Amino acid sequence: MLDTPNKILNGVDVTALNEIIEAVNEDTSLAIFKFQANNKWLGGGWNRTAINAFYGAGEDHLRDETFFYDNDEPPVLLGENRSANPVEFVLHALAGCLTSTLAYHAAARDIEIEKIDSELKGEMDARGFLDLADDVPIGYKSIEVLIRVKTSAKADTLLELAKFSPVYHTINGKTPVEITVETY
Amino acid sequence: MLDTPNKILNGVDVTALNEIIEAVNEDTSLAIFKFQANNKWLGGGWNRTAINAFYGAGEDHLRDETFFYDNDEPPVLLGENRSANPVEFVLHALAGCLTSTLAYHAAARDIEIEKIDSELKGEMDARGFLDLADDVPIGYKSIEVLIRVKTSAKADTLLELAKFSPVYHTINGKTPVEITVETY
Repeated sequence: MLDTPNKILNGVDVTALNEIIEAVNEDTSLAIFKFQANNKWLGGGWNRTAINAFYGAGEDHLRDETFFYDNDEPPVLLGENRSANPVEFVLHALAGCLTSTLAYHAAARDIEIEKIDSELKGEMDARGFLDLADDVPIGYKSIEVLIRVKTSAKADTLLELAKFSPVYHTINGKTPVEITVETY
Repeated sequence: MLDTPNKILNGVDVTALNEIIEAVNEDTSLAIFKFQANNKWLGGGWNRTAINAFYGAGEDHLRDETFFYDNDEPPVLLGENRSANPVEFVLHALAGCLTSTLAYHAAARDIEIEKIDSELKGEMDARGFLDLADDVPIGYKSIEVLIRVKTSAKADTLLELAKFSPVYHTINGKTPVEITVETY
């Protein structure tokens, strides 16, 4: 067997990525992923999520270690700032997903990326949550994303690639997510 | 000034919550909240979000400490399991928001809650992400939530209260979120 090293670009194993695509094309059931999370209330706005097992690529997966993440609220929302709050975690999830998606899809197209930074802003009107106005959305009114990428590729191309993000598609359509990509 | 202690129920300062509602009714601009997150790519599917400042109740807020959360992917998705992945963080955000919302809204209605646990499951077909099928959603196909609550209140009432969750409303409508509440 020839010892050809895998092609790595943007920290992504492109050889393995292409093998995944081939495998999924042969057996589409390998594309099904089921993720899960278990949460326990700790009082008020404080709670803790455990994340570990998931199903994907035709089998169950269990990590060596369970990840734990807390939610809390700042004092102005009656918490004690033990952790970021749930709506801030939405921004974390969206930022991470856009970034990884961009890195993976760029790697698959031979586009080298040196750096990615992003800034996300989400605005809401708490009258929705507080049940004080029927015409005010309860969730985020909108989310704005600015992604700055150090690369020779064009911003338009990168924007198209980032939009393969699963978290973006989980939200956008209900909550408008406006993404701007800048290159340097 | 009389030294009346604040009413606390479900770990929620109901006196303070009622003061917030009064203040917002007098000046609706106090209900505007702007959250933000800054993310840096660390290579491949690994990246890190910093969360701290936000605007709300008419002023800027800065926590004493910045919160940092990583995203990574498991090996089957070409990462190294350094942290949960972005779509798992969506479940964390949703679980936390439904739980806190339930605790706050129950407290406002004098419903005592002893325990809340929840289990969230999200399914997706990675052919969307991999650009292998136009008819497959790129995001979660659906999210199922089971909330178990120790309380004397009715499950139907609790379900109505949980649905004031901002994260639920940020997602549901684009991605179907099915919530079941069980009491014991």
